[in-house]
Amino acid sequence: MMQTLADIGEDALIRRLVAGLKLDASVIAGPGDDCAVVLPPKQSERLLLKTDTVVEGVHFTTSTTPRLIGRKAMARVISDFAAMAATPHHALITLIAPPRTPVKRVLGIYGGLRAMAEEYGVNIVGGETSRGDQLIITVSMTGTAPAKDWVARNHAKAGDCLFVTGQLGGSIKRKHLHFHPRVQEAQWLVKHARITAMMDLSDGLGKDLPRLAASCGVGFHIKPEDLPLTRGCSIQQAVGDGEDYELLFAVSAKYSIGLLSDWSQAFPKLKLTRIGKLVADPQTRGIPSGGWEHFR
Amino acid sequence: MMQTLADIGEDALIRRLVAGLKLDASVIAGPGDDCAVVLPPKQSERLLLKTDTVVEGVHFTTSTTPRLIGRKAMARVISDFAAMAATPHHALITLIAPPRTPVKRVLGIYGGLRAMAEEYGVNIVGGETSRGDQLIITVSMTGTAPAKDWVARNHAKAGDCLFVTGQLGGSIKRKHLHFHPRVQEAQWLVKHARITAMMDLSDGLGKDLPRLAASCGVGFHIKPEDLPLTRGCSIQQAVGDGEDYELLFAVSAKYSIGLLSDWSQAFPKLKLTRIGKLVADPQTRGIPSGGWEHFR
Repeated sequence: MMQTLADIGEDALIRRLVAGLKLDASVIAGPGDDCAVVLPPKQSERLLLKTDTVVEGVHFTTSTTPRLIGRKAMARVISDFAAMAATPHHALITLIAPPRTPVKRVLGIYGGLRAMAEEYGVNIVGGETSRGDQLIITVSMTGTAPAKDWVARNHAKAGDCLFVTGQLGGSIKRKHLHFHPRVQEAQWLVKHARITAMMDLSDGLGKDLPRLAASCGVGFHIKPEDLPLTRGCSIQQAVGDGEDYELLFAVSAKYSIGLLSDWSQAFPKLKLTRIGKLVADPQTRGIPSGGWEHFR
Repeated sequence: MMQTLADIGEDALIRRLVAGLKLDASVIAGPGDDCAVVLPPKQSERLLLKTDTVVEGVHFTTSTTPRLIGRKAMARVISDFAAMAATPHHALITLIAPPRTPVKRVLGIYGGLRAMAEEYGVNIVGGETSRGDQLIITVSMTGTAPAKDWVARNHAKAGDCLFVTGQLGGSIKRKHLHFHPRVQEAQWLVKHARITAMMDLSDGLGKDLPRLAASCGVGFHIKPEDLPLTRGCSIQQAVGDGEDYELLFAVSAKYSIGLLSDWSQAFPKLKLTRIGKLVADPQTRGIPSGGWEHFR
């Protein structure tokens, strides 16, 4: 019979989840104490904080491969650090699960969390478990960025050009479980162009771009025919599907010249597309509406 | 009709949750961007990280006053910083809620979260919302401690004396919703005694003390008749009820002399009790078993 969480109990579960965790020299005390203890960032840096959650039936299904659930939970948060051109460092994992959950499923999820963390140099330093009616994984993370090089969402101006990485739409088929957070790409961007605002596309361009524009107090104009569509996807899907986890950013017009060619040399396998520009009138929103709404 | 989360949607909900948040000068970017951005700790400090979660039906009920749910969610995490004699600073809130949840209930919960955060000098710098089948609040927090003054759980030795603050047992009647994390008390302790191990009692002495002893590789001997019982509680309840959120700590024998009298001058309203000592044989566990088990 398949072993469940109720069979082994919390302490034994945690022992299995943390066994063999890889921690780097920044970690002074990892899992096992009331808090994790790590070295502070440099004084020339800023500390960044983010939490994100995946819920069964919302972000994955009962039939999603456990390893890919864990991968997604970790990658979503890393993507938020990419959105600010930051480097992720230390993660805490909260697992809510029904007692009948097979131990094997939880170990699979942690396998995905750990693999993704290792790929991006993130240390899993602690966490929390509780029973609940459905499976939920929350990842909370710290990261750092140079004090002058992190990118906010709200500093763009009218006239700045808008770009997106990769292709948009149709993520549910595969990408929402397999995407690669654009950490390296974002750090390249802040070094090679004046990025005035950036975010990652999690709820879809139709929802996220209005948010970016609103926080800058401007409007935007997009040419729908210029949107980089995932093969087989319509413009409506590119705007509304969500979970692209690509970077959306604004660049001052003069820095946008030459950016596409520099980019294609640095990242020959990843598309970069200029999709439009920001305009002064906040009411100008030349895009079909759409995007993911959590409570509807 | 009562307004629900489905009625107002995620963006409007978040606007109401973050309106008027008090943030101190350490916060460079609070809610509204992909990550929060804060000043780093001093180089002479350590960064501490903790996450904790409260689940409807496990840590509170459908009839618990919303404000007290929020208070508890925040206080539990702060208590973990107390357990290491650290100071909590920045918090992220994850809210999982069914779409039918009344907006008023969520605002009440955030009222409790915010009041507790303000009382302990904690900034709420961001968070995440998602729909789910039951109400769950996860609080992730950073804090700091001087590099040489934080207290681990695993450095005590045989012969060290064991103490607990406050009274144990019967927390479900009231205290689990009204407790005061022992932050100030813990910081006093590291200055006035050599604390060799400390933790907060969340799952009950019967479960938490064996954990502390095991991480130190020692056993323990408790005199059950010396346990400080909440009025009307039995020894079994003091050991097994859980959710005391008092400090359990070990002190080298020579520092334990005089500690009780120094303590009673510093904290005349809060009891401190010597409950026993650590012993060399890890198999010696002189305490009735008990305590909270999450998956059973």
